Amino acid sequence: MKPDELRQARAYLLRVTEPPAAAVAAFVAQLGAIEAAKRVRQGDCPPEVRKATEARRARDFVDQDFARATAAGARLVIPEDDEWPAWPLLTLDLAARRGVTEAVAPLALWVAGEVALGVAADRAVAVVGARASTPYGEHHAAEFAYGLAARKVPVFSGAAYGIDGAAHRGALAADGVTVAVLGCAVDVGYPAGHVALLNRIAERGGAVVSEYPPGTRPARHRFLVRNRLIAALTEGTLVVEAGLRSGARNTAGTAGALGKVVMALPGPVSSAMSAGCHELIRDARATLVSNVDEVLETVGRFGIAEDTSARPKRPTDRLGPEALRTYEALAVRADRTDTEIAAESGLPLRKVRALLPALEIDGFAVRGDTGWRRRRESA
Amino acid sequence: MKPDELRQARAYLLRVTEPPAAAVAAFVAQLGAIEAAKRVRQGDCPPEVRKATEARRARDFVDQDFARATAAGARLVIPEDDEWPAWPLLTLDLAARRGVTEAVAPLALWVAGEVALGVAADRAVAVVGARASTPYGEHHAAEFAYGLAARKVPVFSGAAYGIDGAAHRGALAADGVTVAVLGCAVDVGYPAGHVALLNRIAERGGAVVSEYPPGTRPARHRFLVRNRLIAALTEGTLVVEAGLRSGARNTAGTAGALGKVVMALPGPVSSAMSAGCHELIRDARATLVSNVDEVLETVGRFGIAEDTSARPKRPTDRLGPEALRTYEALAVRADRTDTEIAAESGLPLRKVRALLPALEIDGFAVRGDTGWRRRRESA
Repeated sequence: MKPDELRQARAYLLRVTEPPAAAVAAFVAQLGAIEAAKRVRQGDCPPEVRKATEARRARDFVDQDFARATAAGARLVIPEDDEWPAWPLLTLDLAARRGVTEAVAPLALWVAGEVALGVAADRAVAVVGARASTPYGEHHAAEFAYGLAARKVPVFSGAAYGIDGAAHRGALAADGVTVAVLGCAVDVGYPAGHVALLNRIAERGGAVVSEYPPGTRPARHRFLVRNRLIAALTEGTLVVEAGLRSGARNTAGTAGALGKVVMALPGPVSSAMSAGCHELIRDARATLVSNVDEVLETVGRFGIAEDTSARPKRPTDRLGPEALRTYEALAVRADRTDTEIAAESGLPLRKVRALLPALEIDGFAVRGDTGWRRRRESA
Repeated sequence: MKPDELRQARAYLLRVTEPPAAAVAAFVAQLGAIEAAKRVRQGDCPPEVRKATEARRARDFVDQDFARATAAGARLVIPEDDEWPAWPLLTLDLAARRGVTEAVAPLALWVAGEVALGVAADRAVAVVGARASTPYGEHHAAEFAYGLAARKVPVFSGAAYGIDGAAHRGALAADGVTVAVLGCAVDVGYPAGHVALLNRIAERGGAVVSEYPPGTRPARHRFLVRNRLIAALTEGTLVVEAGLRSGARNTAGTAGALGKVVMALPGPVSSAMSAGCHELIRDARATLVSNVDEVLETVGRFGIAEDTSARPKRPTDRLGPEALRTYEALAVRADRTDTEIAAESGLPLRKVRALLPALEIDGFAVRGDTGWRRRRESA
């Protein structure tokens, strides 16, 4: 199907702009994509827009871009589409108004995978982390992603080796929706070892997403720019493992700047790959989470987490402080008189005399021939 | 040496009162210890004081108490002594005024060990945790205590098996001051497996401390009451490992209620013994610490922690965003023209032309016959 003029205009704008480009976005918002594209092509635009597009504005590769995207099973999703994740991306505009300079919504997104992007980005959670991950991090990335996906929470990540890959795989294992947002084009197949994974994500109900035109190769700055999309398209970001300098921490920082929830998994303090997580938590830039229920509770949108009151209880927990002191003053193997128990517990004799029969009834004390003794806690 | 009348009065009051007893403390503050002891002996005291002392007021064992304490190498330290840790314990009075009911200063303290208690309690840190500790927790308890002691920070703990014992041992290994605050008398030798450790603490510049009169056996409520002293006598409490219900968390709660710093060590989320620490951190009742410098920084009294800027750096860290984009647009094995680099980076050609020579000077780019290429990051 031939793309309409609007879609062609946005594809052209993606092709000639290196995101994030606030000036171009504002120009498009002002004139509409078709007119903006026309003016950019002609070089008839404000200095800031010109500066952002002049190096590439002659690259009018729209037909090729659609051909290559189609060959890769991808479509262009534009803000005018129903499936556009307008609500999550609105946080970028709001952050921009607060002065977050990198907070620029994408002009459109190349998407491979059948799921509607707006559905995938509805109440999703990002699970991200270091490429140089440890078995601890990979295990928990997969477990958290599995648990989220099993609860119908879409899992976003960046398809990198290490934590990202483990997160996508965990979500796939639960037959959940998982979305890979790339720092290169959807047809580039990067990282090479994850090509099969990316195909599986797109084929099994998830999506592979990029704002870069077909053929765009990965670059470090693109991963950072991409991170804002992972943060924006989700309710919250969980950093599973991160070194003290790590792209995952950048995603976390962006998520925080966008007003999204930032979470981090603690780990052994001896692990350099948990150091970034610990720093985020220590500096109150992330909330510590240790299980999926805490993720849901922290993100706060998904109803009630499982009852966490299932912690171990002792029988004596139901005793009041004076009853507990009386109980503690009893011996297990010898009878004690009420006077001895009063002295040992430091409680008045009349109080001890009142409490002992109550402890007997509740199965904590046994009356013997020469006094009282403790009944073992097996009660 | 025969104890003076004041010391005898306070020893008697400790003997007949089960702490914490706010009424008795107030009575002593009002009348002085000598007169208060006399009145308690005679039963001539307000109802609340009478109630708190009636079970034991006939136990006039002062001579025996001093004899047993002396035999155990202990002395009675009273508020009238220079070595009394008045300043740290003041937090108990302040907390009591805020309505923290258990916040009652001790009437006196039995102390074994030559260090002046006020010196030991000057800018000290408590390192506490579960008895059912893991090798992870024990290792780090010892490491943190060693590091603190090596920086002349006294380490307080509760002498229990597990984390407490590891903390005391770590401090001893650094020839530092460590103080064990007990939930039984100093002469009881509890826990049995730590008798040698307690002796070493007292002999090697530390102290073993208790508000319980000689012969008092341990009881669960006494550990909880004791915990307020560990919290009060230190600047901050570090919880190394704790289950979801744990006395260490009680110490942390008390420390928080006293306005002291509460810290917790993170660990593997799969470890039940880190669950209590994680809960404290997650609920913002404790600050995450992952090394000794962070403990010192959190407690905030000890001057400057080590420079933490020694994190790994990449050579390209010093490049600005546009220089970095230009650098990323270079290939390693092929020359690119300035026009190609401008297109790849999305930067204006004139900007790229200005940046390339600067990158060359800084060792990031190499000029070739047909354009520019990247110099490997080894620079």
